[in-house]
Amino acid sequence: MPKVIGVLGGMGPAATIDFMDKVLRHAQAHAAREQDLVRLIVDSNPALPDRNAAIAGTGPSPAPGLAAMTRGLETAGADLLVMPCNAAHAFADAVIGATRLPFLHLIEETVAAVVSDYPAARRIGVLAVNGAVQARLYEDALAARDLAPVTPSDAERAGFMEGVWQIKAGNLDAGRLLLCTAAEQLIARGADVIIAGCTEVPLVIGPDDLAVSVIDSTDMLARRAVAHAYDAAA
Amino acid sequence: MPKVIGVLGGMGPAATIDFMDKVLRHAQAHAAREQDLVRLIVDSNPALPDRNAAIAGTGPSPAPGLAAMTRGLETAGADLLVMPCNAAHAFADAVIGATRLPFLHLIEETVAAVVSDYPAARRIGVLAVNGAVQARLYEDALAARDLAPVTPSDAERAGFMEGVWQIKAGNLDAGRLLLCTAAEQLIARGADVIIAGCTEVPLVIGPDDLAVSVIDSTDMLARRAVAHAYDAAA
Repeated sequence: MPKVIGVLGGMGPAATIDFMDKVLRHAQAHAAREQDLVRLIVDSNPALPDRNAAIAGTGPSPAPGLAAMTRGLETAGADLLVMPCNAAHAFADAVIGATRLPFLHLIEETVAAVVSDYPAARRIGVLAVNGAVQARLYEDALAARDLAPVTPSDAERAGFMEGVWQIKAGNLDAGRLLLCTAAEQLIARGADVIIAGCTEVPLVIGPDDLAVSVIDSTDMLARRAVAHAYDAAA
Repeated sequence: MPKVIGVLGGMGPAATIDFMDKVLRHAQAHAAREQDLVRLIVDSNPALPDRNAAIAGTGPSPAPGLAAMTRGLETAGADLLVMPCNAAHAFADAVIGATRLPFLHLIEETVAAVVSDYPAARRIGVLAVNGAVQARLYEDALAARDLAPVTPSDAERAGFMEGVWQIKAGNLDAGRLLLCTAAEQLIARGADVIIAGCTEVPLVIGPDDLAVSVIDSTDMLARRAVAHAYDAAA
């Protein structure tokens, strides 16, 4: 039996659904029949306080809620944990501190995928929300690998943020337009590849939709989680 | 806060994802911001024994597994329970017997939706898997409302079943062809509307894809679950 993947989700709910869909696609390569597919236990909890406001110091922290969800998923039978939301990784310590289960870190897994899949890339575009930027999630992880982040200006990021909110509200077309503009600004600034460093981005931009490759952090996490789940079963 | 929806899922995993997506769409009408969306706790457990084999007496029962999942979802904080798989409702008593939480019954909710949304319909086409037919899930629920089920012949249902397996294996195009053929056979036999009485059907056939309306049992359950969740919050 593959290991059970516990999912700290709901940030937002559409990103959690997208993650589950990508897990299913990767798991189908391991499964001859439905019964061999991986089990997921998912807490899709949109009520968690907004991560951007918490990181900016203008709202309550999601850390206590994340710790409670972590304990709930462990009790429910999860063998490993993932959190398909980039900005929430500013609070990854709250998850790690609440459990002895392995936690696959979305940011680390995504940067590792950039290094392995795009070894020639040096200038790494990052589309991430205000909170993730303020917490330097990708900036620090890229610097540790001697890679240079290419990020939007504050004005450009305001347009990007508006696109993310549109997607969270279900307005995918309006969101896609704003996110593509932000991505093209990074390409103009010399990005060799772009990390979709917000789980709303891959909801509207595919890996081959732009002039450079777009690295889907949701898909990287799904791929690693499935590999981990079936590796333990082998 | 809306009530927490607990989902007995994984039968199959794609149907669970489809259900979550439909819950999200209905919940967006109730929520001005992400934090107001409904929380779901989902156990997507594809390892449950095959329902068709169990109903036919040729395989183990999923009932003990469903009861264990039910207790797990109650412990994790669910306020109401749903099971987005039609055939699994042959084992609904195992869920109901394991909890004091309300359980929204997919078959009953779907037939109630047919009565309210299509009051003139008399001959109700049903696309359901072998197990659901053998357990007379829709046949009995329709008869209780004085409605006549229109069902495939055994030979036609063999083609339908093959389509369902293709979808579960991720081969959506091949599955769609087989399911559309089965649906058209019901229309030729005089069905006024067709119940998509298997959660794989709406993955490939939309409500307006055929000459008669297709009633999406997954969407009916999502609609009712969301109404129940927000009604309790009012």
